[in-house]
Amino acid sequence: MIGQTPDRLKSRKPRAFDLGGSARWLEAHMRTVIRRGPLSARERGLADRLMQLKREAGSHSPSAPTILKMIPELRMRVDACFLSNPYATELFLDHLYREVIRPGKLRMLLELYPSQNRVIAAKLATALDLPTERLFVGNGAIEIIQAILHRFTGPKLLVNLPTFSPYYEFARPDTQVVYNVLRKEDDFHFDVGEYIQTVRREKPDTIILINPNNPDGGYIPHAKLVAMLEELRDVPNILVDESFLHFACEGEGFAYHSLTRDLDRFPNLMVVKSMSKDFGVAGIRAGYAVMSPERVKALLDNGYLWNSSGLAEYFFDLYSRPEFHADYERKRIHYIRHSRRFFKALTNLPGVHAYPTHANFALLELRRDDMTAEDLVCRLLVRRGIYTRACDDKKGLEPGRFIRVASRTRSENRYILRGLKEALR
Amino acid sequence: MIGQTPDRLKSRKPRAFDLGGSARWLEAHMRTVIRRGPLSARERGLADRLMQLKREAGSHSPSAPTILKMIPELRMRVDACFLSNPYATELFLDHLYREVIRPGKLRMLLELYPSQNRVIAAKLATALDLPTERLFVGNGAIEIIQAILHRFTGPKLLVNLPTFSPYYEFARPDTQVVYNVLRKEDDFHFDVGEYIQTVRREKPDTIILINPNNPDGGYIPHAKLVAMLEELRDVPNILVDESFLHFACEGEGFAYHSLTRDLDRFPNLMVVKSMSKDFGVAGIRAGYAVMSPERVKALLDNGYLWNSSGLAEYFFDLYSRPEFHADYERKRIHYIRHSRRFFKALTNLPGVHAYPTHANFALLELRRDDMTAEDLVCRLLVRRGIYTRACDDKKGLEPGRFIRVASRTRSENRYILRGLKEALR
Repeated sequence: MIGQTPDRLKSRKPRAFDLGGSARWLEAHMRTVIRRGPLSARERGLADRLMQLKREAGSHSPSAPTILKMIPELRMRVDACFLSNPYATELFLDHLYREVIRPGKLRMLLELYPSQNRVIAAKLATALDLPTERLFVGNGAIEIIQAILHRFTGPKLLVNLPTFSPYYEFARPDTQVVYNVLRKEDDFHFDVGEYIQTVRREKPDTIILINPNNPDGGYIPHAKLVAMLEELRDVPNILVDESFLHFACEGEGFAYHSLTRDLDRFPNLMVVKSMSKDFGVAGIRAGYAVMSPERVKALLDNGYLWNSSGLAEYFFDLYSRPEFHADYERKRIHYIRHSRRFFKALTNLPGVHAYPTHANFALLELRRDDMTAEDLVCRLLVRRGIYTRACDDKKGLEPGRFIRVASRTRSENRYILRGLKEALR
Repeated sequence: MIGQTPDRLKSRKPRAFDLGGSARWLEAHMRTVIRRGPLSARERGLADRLMQLKREAGSHSPSAPTILKMIPELRMRVDACFLSNPYATELFLDHLYREVIRPGKLRMLLELYPSQNRVIAAKLATALDLPTERLFVGNGAIEIIQAILHRFTGPKLLVNLPTFSPYYEFARPDTQVVYNVLRKEDDFHFDVGEYIQTVRREKPDTIILINPNNPDGGYIPHAKLVAMLEELRDVPNILVDESFLHFACEGEGFAYHSLTRDLDRFPNLMVVKSMSKDFGVAGIRAGYAVMSPERVKALLDNGYLWNSSGLAEYFFDLYSRPEFHADYERKRIHYIRHSRRFFKALTNLPGVHAYPTHANFALLELRRDDMTAEDLVCRLLVRRGIYTRACDDKKGLEPGRFIRVASRTRSENRYILRGLKEALR
């Protein structure tokens, strides 16, 4: 539950998180009867203000806090727009309270300068078992995406569609962006052979892949990707964004396969990773890239000296500890398990196609004419407090048809599912 | 007091800060007798490790947490290397605990994406009473310095010496850096006439001034600076860094005079401001620049979308509230008052020249041959736990001669003063 603490919890000792309380609230709310039929004038007014905020946010969704601030009458219950593992957030907060806040050590993290980039990279090197000189720590993955596009990309950039929009929006004005369109008819499947043909034809100096892809969740298996990298050794810059990789498993178990182990063989490869999704800590802005030592040096030679906050440094400290890693792995597997059930349930919604996903969200297509994506998003938020993402602004997706829904906690997912069923009835 | 909470405080309810306890500890410690004479073998060993860390940190000082981590035997008491108002840090922490941590709202700041750059700029616009479209919010001032040098600076950059080293270190490889040397014989006084001549001769496209200057604290009065800007209308980019301006007062009272009010008249002017110094929140990485709307737009058009953390956004929220402003003003004036007394006392140290300062630190020159700056810094840290900055790596300062000492709390300043007197005896 977002933004507000239920009254009965207020007198309790403040806790890092109130998901327990929130889950109970959601269960109770599920049993209440929600008015059916078209939106009332008041609800329509809220929906209009929401759409106005959305337009102002450009090709991104306004954040939950922005919505709560600008439309205080709105009661947001579940942020299913936000793509993160909420159990990992709890794990981080639990450590932060125990090790930093309760012992009165927060001041040090907020008052003093955090360490320099290379010092934090050394902590991360321990966590990832990679050499420090290959690691570049960013103020969120977005800073690294910008750095690569501005510093390494040349005249031509190849981007898949649909994609995360900064991959084309952040290109320099002198970079031409060309697209490889993934088709909904093929469930946005990435065809390696077709892609290599496109690369041969367009001759881009930089190619970008998100694996699993955002916003559809499509996944290219590790072996297939490595084989493709062998073919594309002549492309100067290959950026693979693995921000959602921790949710993508191959084979029977829950193992994921990162390209960071293959960097020795591919000096043209740069692997970018956000910490916001798998660790659920978007607010601390932490990300990293693994790339050739020459590229890391080029970036650090004239910039990015103090680009991590004290809390991001604390996060990377935690991440380098094996016991935190083990706890995190349990949270990751728990989250994947119930996310899979959620995604399966989404495939049974009436008049909707749920695309296959290997990420922690699902792309839904409305295959009916009585409702647009915007209608559905507004209805879910205004009536049920469920915030989802209309994808009308996503290049490569037909406007009015697509929404993206994140998997949250188990009880939140049940609540989202019920909200969707109700809205689509 | 840094890093460690005294035992008697540990059983107490954790507080945001323990300066009260720290002050008492310092008072008690002042009365203890410290061994005189040359460093012992153990002390020499600590000093050597310290110097090793310093070399690894390049042209910056290793942060206090890095030192504490790498040399745990060292007992750091006062970080007089760090240039900030500690009373303002307390004010921020006080609000953070009351409004965010105790009511259980921290999760929202750490889990969710903070707002986009323009949304945060709008909050700052309220605080500064300036139009939003002139404001660019940065992940610390350092991000903005990098952005300006990489995006707006052309073939030639003019920088004063001594200066904050990123102003020349972050220049692009194709930018030539030329220097305007401030002389210690003139107390590092900035001569406007001489500077204009240098600009006419060198024809730089970008000129940079820090006012008050770091590391000497020299100040150019507002009217003089405005007159100079009138003369330099043909220079494409003028960057004035006002990160220490809140400590520089003109006339009788404590008013400071920012160039941000003069931006309408000088479209070539960019004013950069760190929040780390006056507000003492370096760990949250917050800074801003005021510049022409065209420049702000150029930066935001292809980057810097989510470059503030949740805590930085909360800081800018606070900053936009008049009552916080009023409280901050009291802390600022209190700090300036006792800092002035501290700087005056420094002028009486034996064998040392303290340069006149309008900032929150003072540059000291050792005018004796029995001790180098490095010796003094090591002795202060190893014997007294006082961390100061040797300026051997600062271009434009004779190596071995200069140290920079920050003003901290009143009791810490007394402790620093006693440490200095003892070390210089």
